[in-house]
Amino acid sequence: MTVTLQDIHTAAQRIKPYAHRTPILTNESLNQQVGAEVYFKCENMQKVGAFKFRGACNAVYSLSDEEAARGVCTHSSGNHAQALALAARIRGIPAYIVMPDNAPSVKKNAVAGYGGQISFCAPTLDAREATLRRVYESTGANVVHPYNDERVIAGQGTAALELLEDVPDLDVIITPVGGGGLLSGTAIAATETKKGIRVIAGEPEMADDAYQSMKEGKIVPSMNPKTIADGLLTSLGSLTFPIIHERVEQVVTVSEQGIIDSMKFIWERAKIVIEPSAAVAVGVLWERKVDLNGLKVGVILSGGNVDLEKLPW
Amino acid sequence: MTVTLQDIHTAAQRIKPYAHRTPILTNESLNQQVGAEVYFKCENMQKVGAFKFRGACNAVYSLSDEEAARGVCTHSSGNHAQALALAARIRGIPAYIVMPDNAPSVKKNAVAGYGGQISFCAPTLDAREATLRRVYESTGANVVHPYNDERVIAGQGTAALELLEDVPDLDVIITPVGGGGLLSGTAIAATETKKGIRVIAGEPEMADDAYQSMKEGKIVPSMNPKTIADGLLTSLGSLTFPIIHERVEQVVTVSEQGIIDSMKFIWERAKIVIEPSAAVAVGVLWERKVDLNGLKVGVILSGGNVDLEKLPW
Repeated sequence: MTVTLQDIHTAAQRIKPYAHRTPILTNESLNQQVGAEVYFKCENMQKVGAFKFRGACNAVYSLSDEEAARGVCTHSSGNHAQALALAARIRGIPAYIVMPDNAPSVKKNAVAGYGGQISFCAPTLDAREATLRRVYESTGANVVHPYNDERVIAGQGTAALELLEDVPDLDVIITPVGGGGLLSGTAIAATETKKGIRVIAGEPEMADDAYQSMKEGKIVPSMNPKTIADGLLTSLGSLTFPIIHERVEQVVTVSEQGIIDSMKFIWERAKIVIEPSAAVAVGVLWERKVDLNGLKVGVILSGGNVDLEKLPW
Repeated sequence: MTVTLQDIHTAAQRIKPYAHRTPILTNESLNQQVGAEVYFKCENMQKVGAFKFRGACNAVYSLSDEEAARGVCTHSSGNHAQALALAARIRGIPAYIVMPDNAPSVKKNAVAGYGGQISFCAPTLDAREATLRRVYESTGANVVHPYNDERVIAGQGTAALELLEDVPDLDVIITPVGGGGLLSGTAIAATETKKGIRVIAGEPEMADDAYQSMKEGKIVPSMNPKTIADGLLTSLGSLTFPIIHERVEQVVTVSEQGIIDSMKFIWERAKIVIEPSAAVAVGVLWERKVDLNGLKVGVILSGGNVDLEKLPW
């Protein structure tokens, strides 16, 4: 079982009443800086400030009424948590969210603000999964994994569908990669919609499990990732890896300085607030490790949730 | 002699090859917060990061070749300086810029980066004008005042033309007011294009000369203004005041805290980088001193040039 283009079109119809069709913006200074014609798909302006709302909303509205009544649950370092909490609130069902206790305060507050019921845990995958298991056992809520879930992958793919509707002649699409939900959904949407389009991922050098996984041809777990791009700490999943391995041209690693410099440039010149994880996709162009000169490049700005009291410059 | 709607249409044609048609963005959280349907005209995404490019570009391209050859000069605390320097560079003529020595470094660097030749002076109107006079006497360059100039006023009015083309059924347009170039150009464009539309200005409480001028029915100069909105320190001009007095419904003052809170909300929720002067227009809605409940409100986000190392929170 995998995700098809039809699943993504179905997701697009399903989430249409609830999700924003986000704007596409351009910036001449950046184009000059990186030597390409760049189109930003502004998922930082999506509800909850991240593309994650698309997948969460598709998952929540895929449930039957009976399933939905038990609510949804997940573990997430932030944006997926907000997204699931909001999607659940819109449908009028409970959301139980397991969060690491070191998540940025702006994200904790947002989840609570959307009515999510938070259980904090230690910031390790083991602790998250154990806590989620307890929540599931006590509530019977439907687990919606942040990325290793077909409904989520299909939902995330809808951003690329919209991008290609608005800019059909793109040569390349770049997304960041963490667990691979956005990347795998984008890869299916893009390569099935437009034969020959290249899909490239940006990943922090300091959390390069997807890069390693592509090299090894199997999932290499993320070991002690340390990056400012706090949305990209997770490893690829059993559903996302095969899609990525098949359809993504390459994963390009970006240095921490490249992430910060790209982020600052986008804030200063394009006047768009993006989070470090989104800047990783820009960093692929910024560090010019792959030749995209003169091409039309779509970049999915994945999110814009930043603690304005703690900026990296 | 005053500025007509035809002048603004002529300006729009004149600057079209050089200026961006800036996007219009919306934000649901803000709409809920302020109880209106708000459309942001994103002049922070204009060239040089501010609407000022429109007026400067119109002035530069209004010159005959012979006039243009002597270059242009001005005094400005920042955005107009960048705008004139860039417009001059595009036309291939020199720009001589008088700047107060306390202008934000990001603005000084940008002017120099656009090839402007800077003369620094003390941050008083007298010092600026004396220095500008010396520059004019030694170069013969054409003075382009930041706001008290018909060509500039007509250029600034083009933002409102575009806004009304994209969202024709606006009830109200709000801009910030400093010297009144944007406000007067907007007022002519809006009230001549759509009878009955309301034009409202936001002004810092701590620099409320336009508010006082409207009350007194004559220009009341700005006395020791102290506000974070560093683009709004100047007094109204002999050309801008009569237009504003005739066509603007009211000038609403906004507290310093209201400016900062509005600015932060726009960064956090709308994911748009705006400068404090732009936030003053948002502040009119934020502080709810005027009843705009349920109305369609266009807000011109005047600029986004902020020193990211010195944020007010």
